[in-house]
Amino acid sequence: MFMHNKRLQYTVRVSEPNPKLACMLLEQFGGADGELAAAMRYFTQGLAEEDPGRKDMLLDIATEELSHLEVIGSIVTMLNKGARAQLTEQQSSEAELYQMIGASGTSAKEAILFGGGPGLIDSAGVPWTANYIDSRGEPTVDLRSNIAAESRAKIVYERLIGITDDPGIKEALGFLMTREVAHQKSFEKALYAIEDNFPPGKLPGVEAYANMYVNASQGEGDMRGPWNSGDQWETVDDLNQVLPADPGGDGTASVGLGPSDAGALQMMTARLKSDPDADPMTGADLGAGPGAGRTSKGDQGGASDIHSASRRADSLTPAE
Amino acid sequence: MFMHNKRLQYTVRVSEPNPKLACMLLEQFGGADGELAAAMRYFTQGLAEEDPGRKDMLLDIATEELSHLEVIGSIVTMLNKGARAQLTEQQSSEAELYQMIGASGTSAKEAILFGGGPGLIDSAGVPWTANYIDSRGEPTVDLRSNIAAESRAKIVYERLIGITDDPGIKEALGFLMTREVAHQKSFEKALYAIEDNFPPGKLPGVEAYANMYVNASQGEGDMRGPWNSGDQWETVDDLNQVLPADPGGDGTASVGLGPSDAGALQMMTARLKSDPDADPMTGADLGAGPGAGRTSKGDQGGASDIHSASRRADSLTPAE
Amino acid sequence: MFMHNKRLQYTVRVSEPNPKLACMLLEQFGGADGELAAAMRYFTQGLAEEDPGRKDMLLDIATEELSHLEVIGSIVTMLNKGARAQLTEQQSSEAELYQMIGASGTSAKEAILFGGGPGLIDSAGVPWTANYIDSRGEPTVDLRSNIAAESRAKIVYERLIGITDDPGIKEALGFLMTREVAHQKSFEKALYAIEDNFPPGKLPGVEAYANMYVNASQGEGDMRGPWNSGDQWETVDDLNQVLPADPGGDGTASVGLGPSDAGALQMMTARLKSDPDADPMTGADLGAGPGAGRTSKGDQGGASDIHSASRRADSLTPAE
Amino acid sequence: MFMHNKRLQYTVRVSEPNPKLACMLLEQFGGADGELAAAMRYFTQGLAEEDPGRKDMLLDIATEELSHLEVIGSIVTMLNKGARAQLTEQQSSEAELYQMIGASGTSAKEAILFGGGPGLIDSAGVPWTANYIDSRGEPTVDLRSNIAAESRAKIVYERLIGITDDPGIKEALGFLMTREVAHQKSFEKALYAIEDNFPPGKLPGVEAYANMYVNASQGEGDMRGPWNSGDQWETVDDLNQVLPADPGGDGTASVGLGPSDAGALQMMTARLKSDPDADPMTGADLGAGPGAGRTSKGDQGGASDIHSASRRADSLTPAE
Amino acid sequence: MFMHNKRLQYTVRVSEPNPKLACMLLEQFGGADGELAAAMRYFTQGLAEEDPGRKDMLLDIATEELSHLEVIGSIVTMLNKGARAQLTEQQSSEAELYQMIGASGTSAKEAILFGGGPGLIDSAGVPWTANYIDSRGEPTVDLRSNIAAESRAKIVYERLIGITDDPGIKEALGFLMTREVAHQKSFEKALYAIEDNFPPGKLPGVEAYANMYVNASQGEGDMRGPWNSGDQWETVDDLNQVLPADPGGDGTASVGLGPSDAGALQMMTARLKSDPDADPMTGADLGAGPGAGRTSKGDQGGASDIHSASRRADSLTPAE
Amino acid sequence: MFMHNKRLQYTVRVSEPNPKLACMLLEQFGGADGELAAAMRYFTQGLAEEDPGRKDMLLDIATEELSHLEVIGSIVTMLNKGARAQLTEQQSSEAELYQMIGASGTSAKEAILFGGGPGLIDSAGVPWTANYIDSRGEPTVDLRSNIAAESRAKIVYERLIGITDDPGIKEALGFLMTREVAHQKSFEKALYAIEDNFPPGKLPGVEAYANMYVNASQGEGDMRGPWNSGDQWETVDDLNQVLPADPGGDGTASVGLGPSDAGALQMMTARLKSDPDADPMTGADLGAGPGAGRTSKGDQGGASDIHSASRRADSLTPAE
Repeated sequence: MFMHNKRLQYTVRVSEPNPKLACMLLEQFGGADGELAAAMRYFTQGLAEEDPGRKDMLLDIATEELSHLEVIGSIVTMLNKGARAQLTEQQSSEAELYQMIGASGTSAKEAILFGGGPGLIDSAGVPWTANYIDSRGEPTVDLRSNIAAESRAKIVYERLIGITDDPGIKEALGFLMTREVAHQKSFEKALYAIEDNFPPGKLPGVEAYANMYVNASQGEGDMRGPWNSGDQWETVDDLNQVLPADPGGDGTASVGLGPSDAGALQMMTARLKSDPDADPMTGADLGAGPGAGRTSKGDQGGASDIHSASRRADSLTPAE
Repeated sequence: MFMHNKRLQYTVRVSEPNPKLACMLLEQFGGADGELAAAMRYFTQGLAEEDPGRKDMLLDIATEELSHLEVIGSIVTMLNKGARAQLTEQQSSEAELYQMIGASGTSAKEAILFGGGPGLIDSAGVPWTANYIDSRGEPTVDLRSNIAAESRAKIVYERLIGITDDPGIKEALGFLMTREVAHQKSFEKALYAIEDNFPPGKLPGVEAYANMYVNASQGEGDMRGPWNSGDQWETVDDLNQVLPADPGGDGTASVGLGPSDAGALQMMTARLKSDPDADPMTGADLGAGPGAGRTSKGDQGGASDIHSASRRADSLTPAE
Repeated sequence: MFMHNKRLQYTVRVSEPNPKLACMLLEQFGGADGELAAAMRYFTQGLAEEDPGRKDMLLDIATEELSHLEVIGSIVTMLNKGARAQLTEQQSSEAELYQMIGASGTSAKEAILFGGGPGLIDSAGVPWTANYIDSRGEPTVDLRSNIAAESRAKIVYERLIGITDDPGIKEALGFLMTREVAHQKSFEKALYAIEDNFPPGKLPGVEAYANMYVNASQGEGDMRGPWNSGDQWETVDDLNQVLPADPGGDGTASVGLGPSDAGALQMMTARLKSDPDADPMTGADLGAGPGAGRTSKGDQGGASDIHSASRRADSLTPAE
Repeated sequence: MFMHNKRLQYTVRVSEPNPKLACMLLEQFGGADGELAAAMRYFTQGLAEEDPGRKDMLLDIATEELSHLEVIGSIVTMLNKGARAQLTEQQSSEAELYQMIGASGTSAKEAILFGGGPGLIDSAGVPWTANYIDSRGEPTVDLRSNIAAESRAKIVYERLIGITDDPGIKEALGFLMTREVAHQKSFEKALYAIEDNFPPGKLPGVEAYANMYVNASQGEGDMRGPWNSGDQWETVDDLNQVLPADPGGDGTASVGLGPSDAGALQMMTARLKSDPDADPMTGADLGAGPGAGRTSKGDQGGASDIHSASRRADSLTPAE
Repeated sequence: MFMHNKRLQYTVRVSEPNPKLACMLLEQFGGADGELAAAMRYFTQGLAEEDPGRKDMLLDIATEELSHLEVIGSIVTMLNKGARAQLTEQQSSEAELYQMIGASGTSAKEAILFGGGPGLIDSAGVPWTANYIDSRGEPTVDLRSNIAAESRAKIVYERLIGITDDPGIKEALGFLMTREVAHQKSFEKALYAIEDNFPPGKLPGVEAYANMYVNASQGEGDMRGPWNSGDQWETVDDLNQVLPADPGGDGTASVGLGPSDAGALQMMTARLKSDPDADPMTGADLGAGPGAGRTSKGDQGGASDIHSASRRADSLTPAE
Repeated sequence: MFMHNKRLQYTVRVSEPNPKLACMLLEQFGGADGELAAAMRYFTQGLAEEDPGRKDMLLDIATEELSHLEVIGSIVTMLNKGARAQLTEQQSSEAELYQMIGASGTSAKEAILFGGGPGLIDSAGVPWTANYIDSRGEPTVDLRSNIAAESRAKIVYERLIGITDDPGIKEALGFLMTREVAHQKSFEKALYAIEDNFPPGKLPGVEAYANMYVNASQGEGDMRGPWNSGDQWETVDDLNQVLPADPGGDGTASVGLGPSDAGALQMMTARLKSDPDADPMTGADLGAGPGAGRTSKGDQGGASDIHSASRRADSLTPAE
């Protein structure tokens, strides 16, 4: 059960309204790594958690993230307060309001659709979605996702701190950013308090593939590091070889079809077969116009054509 | 630059078609932790990575994930091959086709919309979205996200292995699952090959908040563990106290408004003020019908009403 | 600031696991009219509300909705608990697990992706989105949206109560449903405690159009009622007449273009003009195959063809 | 069956092109409260409505909203006409076109992706989604949603009127805004023409909870008003008490598990238990770098650190 | 199986950073007609294709599109490189960074969320979705979709070429644009190499409707062209006539209901019937305030009211 | 301006209710290739079209598609009518209703959320989105997209016809399917009535790349056909060669950075460099548990392990 106190967890003092900055800060209100995502990630995990210690921790942090949602939403509200009142009461001229709210598509949406209240959208105006939540119902997985999520939230706050010089906002963002660091530490502790947490889940991997590194990107820039070299790793450089543990494998895909399926498949294939020897006239041929062959092989233009062509009408007549 | 060889990275042998199982496997084709998400996560990171070693690793693994996308997509294709041909050629009766493809909304969508080709949807038919990708352009963050993503992919494969007894599918899924374990190990190595990777980013936290644990969920079930106790932690149990590092803080939000904004705000507030002493007639009062007071205070029903009420028409006349 | 107590607002007693029913109940966890939508609708309004009475009410109800989210999520968790453990520990055979979780695409997603933890998805597996929130930053609008939202939530709970006979679930849903009724009443009171709340907003309408009813759907079934007849209404039945208040209006759209724009427009129009007298050969003509005219005018088939055609291969040769 | 006349319902006279204003107006074309949402809300309700009077009304208004979609789309088209022709024919320099279409991400998308034709996107470029439609197939609910939707559309038009001084646009928007007011009145009449419309649906609420007000947000700012005080209401201030109508309730969640489920659950819990007494080394500890303890307890920095730190490289070496 | 070479398919030389232009170019990275959509459209088709020739072609082109994704992503990365480093290292003042990244909501999201790495979003910041892929598992359909998709990609590149004068970018975009033209030609050849490709699919149409043109939009502007006139077409101008091939049709919808369904329907209809003769008081009546009738019929304002009203407070008192 | 007649364009006679079939048919109501997508595709094109002939055609067909939306929506409504009334009036037992609506996640959503009214969702319950509309504001592009869209709609109707044996539904679907064929023919005529329509748009391609075919997928299965062989084509088989028209190209990406940007970049790179010679302990090492090396190189398991392991608890102790 939740309770609320109208006092914020951290005091918010904004120097002056700034609807455009408000929209940037929405990244942490309704954005991918914002506070709602954090709160809901831990809350849904907490509901299903069986371990009493982790359950308590998840609900502690989920609840605190809701308080952070309130802090960041309050900053956004303060930054929008002037424009909101002006637009609502239409006390400025149309031209002034147009300037005030038109800094970006997001600021227009914030003012016109949300009336300056904090919308659960990100800095580009995209609505929050539960796709941002990656809880998977397995603690050795979810705790790693939580660690990563806190890292992401931390860096987004860091960037926001870098773009504003309002001291009150900077302080509040600093508080929020630091709490993410603390939460990351808690989740790290909880992960390693599970004795055997790697690989995550219950099933061991297939040994033959667990230490294989596939050098799939080659050419200049091929590098070595602890992620692909050393005793632990067996590197596959020749991609054309059949993997040792795929005995008899030929890299094809097959399925056992019954006679009815096989018959239908044969019928479909016959009906839709392409004729490799055809040289059919096509819709593009029909459409290339009387000057034809505009892009035909005989035309020996070059890359530089594009520059002049894009500006000269005559270049549009085909293949002079 | 990418190149392709029509040979799969791992051979796929499916025993027999099964469109419903195909839809479950779509979770790893077009789902949140599927192979497209993996490939695009590492590919977009690789494009912007400045460190040559990590760039190579990211492109190696991104490329391999594309090959995995092909493997899982090939399994899906095999499982759908019979139903696809039957539906296309309409060689079964309507009733048979209705059964064959109607196991779930997803299998209907797979057959009717995608014609049995692998759609970039998840096991519920929801289309893939780039919201699944959480690259943030900072290696100390992204590597943690990659570690978590590999964990998630691992557990999803583990679950899929648990629901099928087709040995060919089980083997291929085992291969794919294990590769996620190997990739996780590579990303772990790459993270710790950055000397100073915690906290992520450049900005240190505000010291006063970095070791504070907020006990926001209380009551029975309050627990201790390494995530909130021990030398490292200062726990806040009394949520009503002002945080020590919020000097002079009173938990309010404020903004400095100029006279024009303040005037408009005052006008808005006056126009929209609520009257606390009113007892207005409302639309609900109008709509409660002649029997009125159906839910009014005088009615002394109880929780048990709902059971009988939901089945008896006469219970719909108000609570007499 | 939020606080949490691990005690639920309403006790949850589930008779036995049922993952399929769990998915139906997700409609009120991560669905359009579910508890998260309710909580976030009122919370975002509360943050920006200037009237202290309404602000308090919005935060009261937002907070209670979070507690409801916890109740419904707990029911879902209980219903999934058995399947979750079985799948995680793989203590049932593959065939049993396949049956257990494969009732629908949603139940597969719930088990495979979310591991049986409550996902913020609806009964079809579609993730929650902030598009469900329609707060507009104007109390005379938002309170009407809140009234409607509570109505919607009420009817969804009513339907869910109708499909389950587990008494513990039925009771908890009855509690949640009734709270929506109570919230609707509070929002009604708050709306009518604003003296002048219709039309919403500040701008009066244009009088000439405010009582006009456009009879845009005609033919059999044209009806009268208080929504289009009586003293208040002026009905427009002849849609071809110019509206009285559109003086000189001719129903066209125009814009004043400068010479540069006008020139470019003329050039574009000339380049792309269609020839009304052409009878061009088309791609469809090319593609209709040697039997040609398969759908050409001369073919005098009829609606009944489709039934036989769909089952007979020979009907596929064109126009027998 | 629909028919169309190329004459608009209201004449559109735009003074001069303005692609940025066009994007703001898209809010009512492809936005959440725009005309497509309105048309589809009433159209889908009308299809399923059994009452002939309401069915006619819903189809009347749905059809008129389609005509409004055409009006607002025509304004957008006019505002874009110049930029569209310029970009298509590339009659301006690159720099001029870059300025012309680059006012916001939305205006870039409108020009580059949609070629200046009206896209079904909102003012931030987010595509329209049927999530905006909240029809629920129950008239006492849907009519309330329609009333709210018309209110929302009205206020959005009001705001758009406030930001433009083009008299032709202002007039057309005034017409559209006023029609929303008229539609709201029709829906109100239709709601109250159903004798017993509250609570919506068929099931009465559980009496014990229908007049309860939960004071979930407390502390300074706790207020009274007709929504929570007066004879009708019973207010719960002490959240820790068990609700009277939850007899024997203890606020826990439980489910009856069979032996197989219980066994699997026990196995899962044992495997994943956390050790409350551990003080494990974690990944964060590994990653904190040689300067270690950068955020450790001993560091006695303060909130002010963040300001200097964010600008000074040396502050990045830990707080020593 | 995919392989990668770190050399790009086309060399990228960007003159100078420009984060705003980067965002416009995202249209072809993570936008609707961008390279990921192209690659995945052909790749998913290729997986399910049975014809070996088309399968090879689809995989050839899918793979090349991945290489194009890399080229356009590399341009975006180069354009962002300066801002990325500045923001990461916070080497510019807050005000400078605010300007640098705040050109639009998209550029803010690109910098703050993605850290300047290329996000899979479009020019408005909307994330890529598999809804952009329209593969349908039928070659005579999919090849037409591919032809159209290449056309769309071509025109988007053309527009992007028109807005930048950086010669290196212009050249690379010219290369990418031209490759779309070449791909379109390949798909045209493949379509017409299927002997009988129109109508797509297997089922012939119902002859009576295949050449009918319904003149559903009438009034001034009714035109003739090869799409609706000539020997092939039978035009229906009188929309009120029953279609010849709908014998006995009366334009109604009906369903056979059993007695139980019919009974429930009758009960529902009775409960929810509207009273056509009512003139109920409504919530709008309650809410219109003491000045009442603000929009009532007696008020004889006109369209011009809106202009003055929107700026004068006194105009808000009703209908002076 | 739109008008409506309550008569359907085609009479709908449904034999009996079938909520599950209703959900499959939703594919053409609220699905990707459904009638709303068609109507909106042509309507938005029509609004911006300058050529009067094409404008008329687009509005004719857009309007007819709205009438088709009504027909398919009416079928869905009829199929749901019984379940809707039963659920609304709760005239069946809970168990019966649970069965009736629980066939899939979609049918549950259709009943519980939409109350049996037709929702704008597809057969999997995914809401309609304007992402399905690919209008680009250029007739030579849009007409190709329209041709493709009609092809897609045709094949989806064909599949739906194949799964139902209700003669009334089959007839109505046959009508709708055939109209798509007729529309495709109209769009083909309109495309080729533009004299010069290929390549689409204004800019010619760069000649050197317009006839190049890149053989990017190689190995067994490499095929020839008119799409890559013949006089028109120059095939690139050696992917490692620099393209002839990329003179001096080396396949790298570069940007000119000013000194400030370059300095920040250097600082960032130094701070985040990875140490290729490190062999750091990682979080995975910490987490691998006391049995360690569970997936370490020394373990010589094989692919077959996975089968037994997944069922035996003892296999979970590492590498016995």
